[in-house]
Amino acid sequence: MGAPDDFEAWFRLLQTPNLGRDKTRQLLAACGGPLAVLRAPPAQWRQIAGPTAADALGREPPELATRWQAARAWLNGGSDRHVLTLGDAAFPPRLLQTADPPLLLYVQGRVEALAAAGVAVVGSRRATAQGLDNARAFGAALSQQGLVVFSGLALGVDAAAHEGALGGHAGTVAVVGTGLDSVYPLRHQALAERIAAHGALVSEYSPGMPPLAENFPQRNRIIAGLSLGTLVVEAALQSGSLITARLALEAGREVFAIPGSIHAPQSKGCHALIKQGAKLVETAQDIVEELRLGTPAQAALGLDEPLIEDPLLQALGHDPVTIDALGARTGWPAAELAVRLLELELEGRVARLPGGLYQQRRGA
Amino acid sequence: MGAPDDFEAWFRLLQTPNLGRDKTRQLLAACGGPLAVLRAPPAQWRQIAGPTAADALGREPPELATRWQAARAWLNGGSDRHVLTLGDAAFPPRLLQTADPPLLLYVQGRVEALAAAGVAVVGSRRATAQGLDNARAFGAALSQQGLVVFSGLALGVDAAAHEGALGGHAGTVAVVGTGLDSVYPLRHQALAERIAAHGALVSEYSPGMPPLAENFPQRNRIIAGLSLGTLVVEAALQSGSLITARLALEAGREVFAIPGSIHAPQSKGCHALIKQGAKLVETAQDIVEELRLGTPAQAALGLDEPLIEDPLLQALGHDPVTIDALGARTGWPAAELAVRLLELELEGRVARLPGGLYQQRRGA
Repeated sequence: MGAPDDFEAWFRLLQTPNLGRDKTRQLLAACGGPLAVLRAPPAQWRQIAGPTAADALGREPPELATRWQAARAWLNGGSDRHVLTLGDAAFPPRLLQTADPPLLLYVQGRVEALAAAGVAVVGSRRATAQGLDNARAFGAALSQQGLVVFSGLALGVDAAAHEGALGGHAGTVAVVGTGLDSVYPLRHQALAERIAAHGALVSEYSPGMPPLAENFPQRNRIIAGLSLGTLVVEAALQSGSLITARLALEAGREVFAIPGSIHAPQSKGCHALIKQGAKLVETAQDIVEELRLGTPAQAALGLDEPLIEDPLLQALGHDPVTIDALGARTGWPAAELAVRLLELELEGRVARLPGGLYQQRRGA
Repeated sequence: MGAPDDFEAWFRLLQTPNLGRDKTRQLLAACGGPLAVLRAPPAQWRQIAGPTAADALGREPPELATRWQAARAWLNGGSDRHVLTLGDAAFPPRLLQTADPPLLLYVQGRVEALAAAGVAVVGSRRATAQGLDNARAFGAALSQQGLVVFSGLALGVDAAAHEGALGGHAGTVAVVGTGLDSVYPLRHQALAERIAAHGALVSEYSPGMPPLAENFPQRNRIIAGLSLGTLVVEAALQSGSLITARLALEAGREVFAIPGSIHAPQSKGCHALIKQGAKLVETAQDIVEELRLGTPAQAALGLDEPLIEDPLLQALGHDPVTIDALGARTGWPAAELAVRLLELELEGRVARLPGGLYQQRRGA
């Protein structure tokens, strides 16, 4: 997929200060596309977007060349890197239906994961041990049931949900608040690489964008917008997860919350949500049923195959392979590979052959 | 108050086998009262209640004389003992509005507590330590806010709710499933005495009735029927508390539930209720607000004084008294008295006078 032909025009529009997504959308609608916007007469800019935006469009955005170079460098850094714009057929439809979709998304990994049926799993950065266990378990179960887990790569609940989902069929997508050339927080570098390899990393920020506090609530609207519903695992009152939940409600999506002790500060946000109408959930099955996806989700969605295949099954392909070859394909440690292969064997999805070879069993 | 003039006629009707409350109500409505029912011709009994009930009415109920003697003996055992029938003006109005009100109630204590604004607090006999603490704290806070706490004197949540409520203004009422001449479970003897002294013990079963499993769900309908709403503190799935909650819903009353960990069996009943529409509550204030009683409850109910006064304030009366005199009046241990007096002093409701005397401060 890579980048659209008019990537440079989109990029320049997005780098223009004082323009904003609303005015950019108006300009795009009026002129027909990003190149047409840039070529339009300043009088038209002024008429549509006002004098301040028109002035900004008339000047070269600050550091444009440097930033464009960074964006090109990132895009050329691997075949798994893509740029999606509002105009692309692959732009995730659910996100398009929201009040304020991003104009452009940087994606590293499987672009199709963004449009797949999925649920946001979010929560506190300072989750309790039980909260982290719950995030991991719900992430795993949702992914296993064929629902992509969308989250924000943050410390705490986000990371645990991603980790849980990586072991399931549908995988996981991390929407981050920085450019995709860096990982924030740094300690999630290895997790980000696994997500990119088996799901997708997504950002609306161009490469080079550092972590800025104001960008994270913006990022939350994308997580909510990509998802059929949002699960809040643990959240204090006045937490960012409640913003995500509110954005989900505004987008007409379901909100789910896990209850806890009335004496636990990290459950108060969840309880507030339930009081306001969020669905109390005890299991991933509660979510699947509420989304009316039936059991299993894939069947109700009319899919014979899991929505996104287990990354290990994908790496297995259809020929017998050694565990070493699988290690090379996935980049996973041998111990993790052995455990996952055993699980798949027990599920009847993988056969162990003589000579240390493994082979996928289709239709098992 | 004591017993109605026609107590013996009511008693005989209630002791008649194969009659049941529905048919008894039909007979009472057709004939005008219990004496008139007993004096009506057998043909009328047959017409209204059918042949089996008519046959039973024509015979003396088994052990009638012994049972009547037990009932009279109980009633004569103290001036705090009362019999309330459907026809009494003091019969609690909310209970009268339910689908199946008891025909007769044995009451030991303050009859007016049954008609006061109140909330049922129920839950598991095998509650967790946290569940017991919650029951105690909600019982205390509701009673403090002027709401009588109705419960069932059972082990676990019931007893903790009663205990908490005894320290508050409005007090507590225990609806039991045995005759009032015995206490079940036995270890709640002292608790039952305190409830009778500062609230009320209630039963629809005549003295001499032993604890029978089938009577306890019946008892639950009275707890739910007396209450503006029912709070379930902790409950496993398939627990008696869920029956009480269902009966509350059927009577058009609110149901409240305290959430907990999704991994705690004793929270699963509460979570099931919340999923079915019960209100998740974190504090007693949540209940008061949901009942639209405002804050404090008394003010919204149009009462200047607490609905039922703090039992200690009542014992204090309006003259200075010694702590020994209070001990004699309340039967409370000196240590408990000292703690409660200090609390009331801190609340500005009691003044400590020279010479170890205490006096109530009205309008403080």
